[in-house]
Amino acid sequence: MDLERALADVVGARHALEDPELRASYERDWTGRFGGPARVVVRPADTAEVAEIVRLCAAAGAAIVPQGGNTGLVGAGVPRNGEVLLSLARLDGIGEVDAALGQVTVGAGATLAALQAACSHAGQDAGLDDAARDSCTIGGVVACDAGGARALRHGTARAHVVGLEAVLADGSTVSRLSGLSKDNAGYDLPQLLVGSEGTLGIITAVRWRTTSALGARVAALVPVASTQAAAALLRALRAEAPSLDSCDFFLDEGMQLVLEQQRRASPLSQRAPVYVLAECAARTDPTDELAAALARAGIEDALIADDTRSREGLWRLREGHTEAIGHLGVPHKLDVGIPLAELGRFLEQVPRVVADAVDGARTILFGHLSDGNVHVNVVGPDPEDERADDAVLGLALACGGTISAEHGVGVAKARWLERARGADEVGAMRAIKRALDPAGLLNPGAVLPSAGWSVLGGLGRRP
Amino acid sequence: MDLERALADVVGARHALEDPELRASYERDWTGRFGGPARVVVRPADTAEVAEIVRLCAAAGAAIVPQGGNTGLVGAGVPRNGEVLLSLARLDGIGEVDAALGQVTVGAGATLAALQAACSHAGQDAGLDDAARDSCTIGGVVACDAGGARALRHGTARAHVVGLEAVLADGSTVSRLSGLSKDNAGYDLPQLLVGSEGTLGIITAVRWRTTSALGARVAALVPVASTQAAAALLRALRAEAPSLDSCDFFLDEGMQLVLEQQRRASPLSQRAPVYVLAECAARTDPTDELAAALARAGIEDALIADDTRSREGLWRLREGHTEAIGHLGVPHKLDVGIPLAELGRFLEQVPRVVADAVDGARTILFGHLSDGNVHVNVVGPDPEDERADDAVLGLALACGGTISAEHGVGVAKARWLERARGADEVGAMRAIKRALDPAGLLNPGAVLPSAGWSVLGGLGRRP
Repeated sequence: MDLERALADVVGARHALEDPELRASYERDWTGRFGGPARVVVRPADTAEVAEIVRLCAAAGAAIVPQGGNTGLVGAGVPRNGEVLLSLARLDGIGEVDAALGQVTVGAGATLAALQAACSHAGQDAGLDDAARDSCTIGGVVACDAGGARALRHGTARAHVVGLEAVLADGSTVSRLSGLSKDNAGYDLPQLLVGSEGTLGIITAVRWRTTSALGARVAALVPVASTQAAAALLRALRAEAPSLDSCDFFLDEGMQLVLEQQRRASPLSQRAPVYVLAECAARTDPTDELAAALARAGIEDALIADDTRSREGLWRLREGHTEAIGHLGVPHKLDVGIPLAELGRFLEQVPRVVADAVDGARTILFGHLSDGNVHVNVVGPDPEDERADDAVLGLALACGGTISAEHGVGVAKARWLERARGADEVGAMRAIKRALDPAGLLNPGAVLPSAGWSVLGGLGRRP
Repeated sequence: MDLERALADVVGARHALEDPELRASYERDWTGRFGGPARVVVRPADTAEVAEIVRLCAAAGAAIVPQGGNTGLVGAGVPRNGEVLLSLARLDGIGEVDAALGQVTVGAGATLAALQAACSHAGQDAGLDDAARDSCTIGGVVACDAGGARALRHGTARAHVVGLEAVLADGSTVSRLSGLSKDNAGYDLPQLLVGSEGTLGIITAVRWRTTSALGARVAALVPVASTQAAAALLRALRAEAPSLDSCDFFLDEGMQLVLEQQRRASPLSQRAPVYVLAECAARTDPTDELAAALARAGIEDALIADDTRSREGLWRLREGHTEAIGHLGVPHKLDVGIPLAELGRFLEQVPRVVADAVDGARTILFGHLSDGNVHVNVVGPDPEDERADDAVLGLALACGGTISAEHGVGVAKARWLERARGADEVGAMRAIKRALDPAGLLNPGAVLPSAGWSVLGGLGRRP
């Protein structure tokens, strides 16, 4: 029996998609930059079906690419060369939120928004948010260790993983969903899988740590004169506003682009080089605390949004960047982390090194100030042209930063990993990969560049 | 040149101890239950010396046992069969605490108390505490993923590790001390090393996440009628007292033992089967919040300690257990984690299963209620007699719990690991161990039972 037939027997014919038209939305990422043909798209219903698929693929020597909401930005969740595309979308159950314990079990295919809603219903807070909330899934969030704006206070996805369930490359299942907040019996395989982007195992469910809901929120949009001033403001807010929940930034070029795209006027009376968007959350109204912290930081001009509607209006300025940039062309989206002390230098130099690398390339910057986490968006270069990417990542390393803060390595940055981490550390990673996936069938080419990969066609370019 | 000579050339003759008298304190754990002869004790001064020691030992095929403060309870930090004992005690530097960022770099050999003092000096809080604070070292705390009472709010050691530096089995060094709070470029080797008990690498420094100091503290000692009532109280406090910082428990037998040992009278007017010791910490006095939460939980009888001296007096009742039990003989100290729903059953049954296993064995229980983390102390059985250990661990698993919550597996529980985790998961752990330490030279016999180990003499018994 051929593999396609065997897989269809496991998931049912309706959930084994061989028709190119049905497969299409699984084969290309939303930016249009990454993707390639899948051998077949399978949509299992539960962990047992995932395990059976992995066993069948292992026996056939077929490579597997796991996919959640297909919102990734580094090509880790789309096929490249005829792999089996395993969609976790149907594993979308969410268990009962244990509010007293602060935990809930979530299927890998549940969206972040669905988890947030379930938590909210129980008086809890998922503690993590990002602009892709309606589409991105918890399995993907954990597989790439997503962070978002609120990582400042609540940590990245890793901090929320009490335990998880995953299918390993041999089809065995690791299950740690009992919710024990202390459990150090042996190596913590769940924490190893966090951020491994589907290359060491396929996450099927997560025991998620929630936090008490903090119903009172206030945001401030603060125009500042420089990134140095923005970093100083962040430090002041961290010291003076214990309810600080997030602290993002964007630049004037992005602001103007978003305002034009959203056909609205700036809520501020004047333009500034840099805008800081800070939000506080507490049980009781944190407006006075935020205002006092801003005053102590010497800020005289800030727009305070203390009701939901105006707060969301401010966030649309920040979150609208992605859509506004998308209208300029297929963006190269690079997510880097820079030590705060070097952030000013990085932000100042990056547009120039990009323009030097590719004539006419345009750079739009925004990100999570609190983590030195900069989203570098480059429009202009062809999707296949990696010169701008190289310039940005090289500058990030020169500034003591990382080539990936929260998007992951995927296929986009795999060939950069050794330069970022050094040969010894990548050697240890390769040893772990060989140990858990000796045949290299789980998401080949992601994170660690596979030897044959560049020969097969670079970054999974359009066929 | 023989290995001893070569090691002495690296660390200096004064720090390569071959004299049995000088070696003695490194060769036996403080309970007196675990230990054996070391080939030599080496005390390197820095990471480069650690790396050189590992390279020399690798070339000579000599096994290494890393040791921090030698406060471990599972025999993971003492030699068993003539290994090289590598003490990290001299790597005790503590860098500047960055209060605004909430981070500090700490040498593996710095004690927890030294880190706490450095944080406090900078208006920060290390966020982790345990009774061994004056001796246990940060390297050991991270290597076993220690938790303690405050893990309720701040997580175990893992949650505090922004990054770390470690020497791997081939002598290469992994270094992630730049303090980037988001960095997912490749597998998170630091998080894999957390809790691996020196079997995958030797931790030399840690980038530690601190938290804002909360200067106002209040504790309450609450006598309750049963463990069910204690668990209900915990849930109520979690829901009603957001400043809850820890929630421990002990039983009347332990209370009486401690009072007798400390020659003091009970601060409570009446005895009760179970005592809950809860503490709140906040920027402003949390006494009203705690009192209100207790009232809403239906607690009428509680001793509130709102000054440092009386608060410390209450904690001495809890922390005095270890010393008081030590006076009864060499204890078997078993650290397990039990789901809250099963905690009552476990606590009720454990004294009986222990007594059934070993005639006359006495069981004293206390622990961190918030994590279902029970410290089971058994006195009576010989150090070599493992029947009581087996009874306790078997009951923990039968209750859906873990054989190790925060002490680690060490050599004490290695042969239990497969029963706890299953063959598939332990198989994956073995593959990782082989990948990173193919010759099996790092802390052999700890965590994963080595094939030859049982032949060589069980648990590293007294020679």
